Amino acid sequence: MQNQSVSHPARFLALAGLFTLAACGGSQAPGTGGADLASLMQARGLSEDDVTAALKTYTPTGKHDEYLIFASGGHGGNLIVIGVPSMRILKYIGVFTPEPWQGYAYGDEATEDVLDGGNRFGKRVEWGDMHHPALSETKGDYDGEFIFVGDKANARLAVVSLKDFMTRQIVTTELIQSDHGAAFVTPNTEYVIETSQYPAPLGGGYAPIEQFNDVYRGAAIFWRFDRAKGLLDRANSFAIELPPYMQDLADSGKLASDGWAFMNCLNSERAYGGVLEGKPALESGASQNDMDYLHCINWRKAEELVKAGRTKTIAGMKVLPLDVAAAEGVLYFVPEPKSPHGVDVTPDGKDIVVGGKLDTHTTVYSIEKIKALTEAKKFIGKDPYGVPILDFKESIRGQCEIGLGPLHTVYDNAGHAYTSVFIESVIAKWSLKDLKVVHKIPMHYNVGHLTAAEGDTVSPDGRFLVGMNKWAIDRFSKVGPLLPQNFQLIDLSAGTEMKLLYDMPIPLGEPHYAQMIKADKIKAIDIYSPVGLNPITHEKSPHATLAKQERIERKDDGVHVYMTAVRSHFTPDIVRVKQGDKVHLHITSVEQAYDATHGFAVGSYNINLSIEPGRHCDVSFVADRAGVFPFYCTEFCSALHLEMAGYLLVEPTK
Amino acid sequence: MQNQSVSHPARFLALAGLFTLAACGGSQAPGTGGADLASLMQARGLSEDDVTAALKTYTPTGKHDEYLIFASGGHGGNLIVIGVPSMRILKYIGVFTPEPWQGYAYGDEATEDVLDGGNRFGKRVEWGDMHHPALSETKGDYDGEFIFVGDKANARLAVVSLKDFMTRQIVTTELIQSDHGAAFVTPNTEYVIETSQYPAPLGGGYAPIEQFNDVYRGAAIFWRFDRAKGLLDRANSFAIELPPYMQDLADSGKLASDGWAFMNCLNSERAYGGVLEGKPALESGASQNDMDYLHCINWRKAEELVKAGRTKTIAGMKVLPLDVAAAEGVLYFVPEPKSPHGVDVTPDGKDIVVGGKLDTHTTVYSIEKIKALTEAKKFIGKDPYGVPILDFKESIRGQCEIGLGPLHTVYDNAGHAYTSVFIESVIAKWSLKDLKVVHKIPMHYNVGHLTAAEGDTVSPDGRFLVGMNKWAIDRFSKVGPLLPQNFQLIDLSAGTEMKLLYDMPIPLGEPHYAQMIKADKIKAIDIYSPVGLNPITHEKSPHATLAKQERIERKDDGVHVYMTAVRSHFTPDIVRVKQGDKVHLHITSVEQAYDATHGFAVGSYNINLSIEPGRHCDVSFVADRAGVFPFYCTEFCSALHLEMAGYLLVEPTK
Repeated sequence: MQNQSVSHPARFLALAGLFTLAACGGSQAPGTGGADLASLMQARGLSEDDVTAALKTYTPTGKHDEYLIFASGGHGGNLIVIGVPSMRILKYIGVFTPEPWQGYAYGDEATEDVLDGGNRFGKRVEWGDMHHPALSETKGDYDGEFIFVGDKANARLAVVSLKDFMTRQIVTTELIQSDHGAAFVTPNTEYVIETSQYPAPLGGGYAPIEQFNDVYRGAAIFWRFDRAKGLLDRANSFAIELPPYMQDLADSGKLASDGWAFMNCLNSERAYGGVLEGKPALESGASQNDMDYLHCINWRKAEELVKAGRTKTIAGMKVLPLDVAAAEGVLYFVPEPKSPHGVDVTPDGKDIVVGGKLDTHTTVYSIEKIKALTEAKKFIGKDPYGVPILDFKESIRGQCEIGLGPLHTVYDNAGHAYTSVFIESVIAKWSLKDLKVVHKIPMHYNVGHLTAAEGDTVSPDGRFLVGMNKWAIDRFSKVGPLLPQNFQLIDLSAGTEMKLLYDMPIPLGEPHYAQMIKADKIKAIDIYSPVGLNPITHEKSPHATLAKQERIERKDDGVHVYMTAVRSHFTPDIVRVKQGDKVHLHITSVEQAYDATHGFAVGSYNINLSIEPGRHCDVSFVADRAGVFPFYCTEFCSALHLEMAGYLLVEPTK
Repeated sequence: MQNQSVSHPARFLALAGLFTLAACGGSQAPGTGGADLASLMQARGLSEDDVTAALKTYTPTGKHDEYLIFASGGHGGNLIVIGVPSMRILKYIGVFTPEPWQGYAYGDEATEDVLDGGNRFGKRVEWGDMHHPALSETKGDYDGEFIFVGDKANARLAVVSLKDFMTRQIVTTELIQSDHGAAFVTPNTEYVIETSQYPAPLGGGYAPIEQFNDVYRGAAIFWRFDRAKGLLDRANSFAIELPPYMQDLADSGKLASDGWAFMNCLNSERAYGGVLEGKPALESGASQNDMDYLHCINWRKAEELVKAGRTKTIAGMKVLPLDVAAAEGVLYFVPEPKSPHGVDVTPDGKDIVVGGKLDTHTTVYSIEKIKALTEAKKFIGKDPYGVPILDFKESIRGQCEIGLGPLHTVYDNAGHAYTSVFIESVIAKWSLKDLKVVHKIPMHYNVGHLTAAEGDTVSPDGRFLVGMNKWAIDRFSKVGPLLPQNFQLIDLSAGTEMKLLYDMPIPLGEPHYAQMIKADKIKAIDIYSPVGLNPITHEKSPHATLAKQERIERKDDGVHVYMTAVRSHFTPDIVRVKQGDKVHLHITSVEQAYDATHGFAVGSYNINLSIEPGRHCDVSFVADRAGVFPFYCTEFCSALHLEMAGYLLVEPTK
């Protein structure tokens, strides 16, 4: 073939199918004005594949991305929104960590209340370790309305509205002390699943660690979601007590497996460390057994038992006891090799793929087989807590020889699965039908999770895949000992072989999981309407202030300032109080132009608001220090932005 | 010319100067395996200019960027590091806002202390409104060692070390209540300049706003920098009292103007709002005069007067009184049109360019003329505070008719200035020699600051320019009412005309200013060495713990845990204390492999650390709640990362 004999940049153009070498003609067009492709390639050291990748990812001014990735921010505690294929980060959404640019919990009472919803043992926790985001689903497809995320460190769950990309709710239960299998949704978002990671006495009490087997427990919580309200409904939620194995990732059944949920575990050994006390470290103690247990939960059965009152209440949560779950057909175990991590249900819901991180296979469990065994009550035994165990070989459809350290699996629209292989540092593409690997692509370095376009739905799109790599090492300019992670964008549309398109550093946070949704499914609003809306309650604030209504009123509980913001002034702009006064600011943006956001800060106080068009914010504080405190708009809003300022005058009382 | 007659993608290739249309030959190479340039362009709607831009910005896996931008994060309070030309964000550096991924002020005592350095009136302020970053300079060139940033809301200044991209120091003085002209450095980083924005009584006291003219004041602070220590030195810093105009941006003289600093002001009208009290809003009151005052400060003269003891001390800061500064040749005013914003010294130091944001010109002041007038004591009068005023026309070299709303100006290596024109929403390129505009490029939308490659140094590089646009509107997918800002990357190497290369959303924060440095000037370290280093003190911690030294000791002040972290366990991994104990964790990462970072979190406490290889962290807390609290590594570190965990066991006392 011609393209094998011609030189480097020329081959690319030959392959373009439209152009041949100038040698055939001889007229050399001058390089003036336009760009010189070959020179550009040479100057920037680009290969033909690079040029293809550049053109597949470059997104010109004003063109929008086809997909949006919602990636967890790990222990940054915020959610990251990324456009695909441009791989530009469009937004960090404050969730578990206060964030001043968004005015998230920096004085704004509505968002302070959201954060306080996640208080633990009566105290505010001001960060989270965000692991697994889950988009809301309708009939197993992302519907673009909400996203849920878990906080591993503090066992919390948050609800983010995709109407305004704001965190609307954080919930927690002291039933458990950490989570990991969160968040995962059932196919119509009936429930959001949160499973514990590190066992502890249920409800937050103390017990010596020597009572690990007897008193320490795990739990799977099924948080009921009220879609109309956009809130998780604690009263209609329930938990299932689990043995003190370390439950890991979870997934929800769909279609053929609807009504079921799956979670795996590590540490069926029930090790708990003690390395200074003569015991093995957990990493060693938890890696002794060849098999751990895939947990299969029939949550519709659990629902029935909850309704029938078979629960006990711990830390305010209805809990289905382990013996009930084991005896009544809610909970089954199937052996799974070895120290598994990801459990991922196939798009048709028929199979459940598990990656054993110390194994070399992915294991494909069959829901049909599992159901048949459970219905026939055909068990090979019970675990120490009475949970029935199914036979491994009779529960699986087969295994795929995949490489060392398989973690997570996602799917395309053509019958392929894609598994991250951590230790080998590749992504393996394999056929779900044949259970054979068809291609591997190296990752730099050490890929953790994967996300694929609409990849967790009943109808994945193929097209794009992202390797969420844990280390970056030499991929980017050095930015100190703490490096970014690296998202590698992969083209699934180029044939059998996966093609690397782009390396994208994550500049803040450490993503664990992400979901990728068609961008046009998201229907975000432009402005808040009517003017004076509280974005958390979704109601017009009782303190909403329109133009000409601005006033300062001294009441029994302090000084109330009813203020408006519009380009480029606050009314009022002078606030006179006495030292010790409680000051209540009620600020309404009367803007209705898209993108005309104002900020509001008071110097030397911890107050900064983001007041998007139409939004209302309330702030209360004690003016405890006499002095002159400028306040001003912190979001550049017009040519006279610097003049959008005023003074809080705090007169001393003595 | 041939390229005007051929079709769209073909023209691009014709211009490449190597290839002509296939029509001349007829052999159509098949498109198998490789990419089809024309099809790709068509499929993604790319123009020829887009292809050029794609190839000029696309940066393949493992290739590093040529330049790094350090951009302020505005009221996000963090610093943003961006690669050029890829426009990928490489890191957010926590500065004024605690940030858990970096373990910045989430329990780590060293960084908590840094943040406490910025306490105001005895209270911690947990965010900042970061405006202007300034890289350290040697002989007027960026040296890549440090970067300084100001916090407008709380009048603070921070020092970030570019060895490890960590914030090493935050300072503040209650002398002033806000700043804006911060940070700007003198040519050898002798001083970092911070000027106030909104006048207030110096030192933080109260005075009725009706005493604005008499008691409210501005100030310019010259913070001494001790490069060997990497710290600002309060004892050797000083301030200059200024009239209650609203001082705005600042710049330092260099070469011809070395020893001088310049700042402009708005509101020579001395308006202060009062819109509910029958006065005009500030935006109106401050926009009455045709001229405000460029402040010219001879800081070497000021240094002499400070040494001579002509200062008074306010809020712990040596302050040169306004009458002394006015009388002794430290402070001069020159009229400047109208409500100016940016003041930018040219690379040769000969000219000072001011943009009047309600004007249509940039005004080019001549340091030679200004010096001559001051030496001759040729003044047109004095302001109400006795400051000598120079004649406008005799102080300038000329004006450039530029468009409505000029803000900021940066420079290239070929005698051009680039000015952002906010209201017209363009960047104007103009000749410094002729004071004529040579090209304008539209910005989407409303450009604020600009940054150019090595643009604030004595030797700018040309090459790249970035428009830091304040609104994004329709440029990106909708992400709610609060939108990203938009950095537009511009190619300065394509001839007279500026060419747009890329739109880059800012996902968190609102940058005001940025500087762009050659990437190879940054010499970031890979790991902390020796093992046990405290990155803030730059000394090995007295609590550094090596392998085999791990222990738990009960002392008078609580329980001390000497712990190591290494893949994949903490030693010890079980910590037993009694409720009410003060717990002191001393954790050393004994890793020395690049990128092998561990995190450390305790559930339900506000504790999260980032322990890069070799780093030592100390955390103290009261174990106030009885119970079982898992701790674990929050930064994915190995296949057995989930097993890197342990338990804090808090036994109840009753």
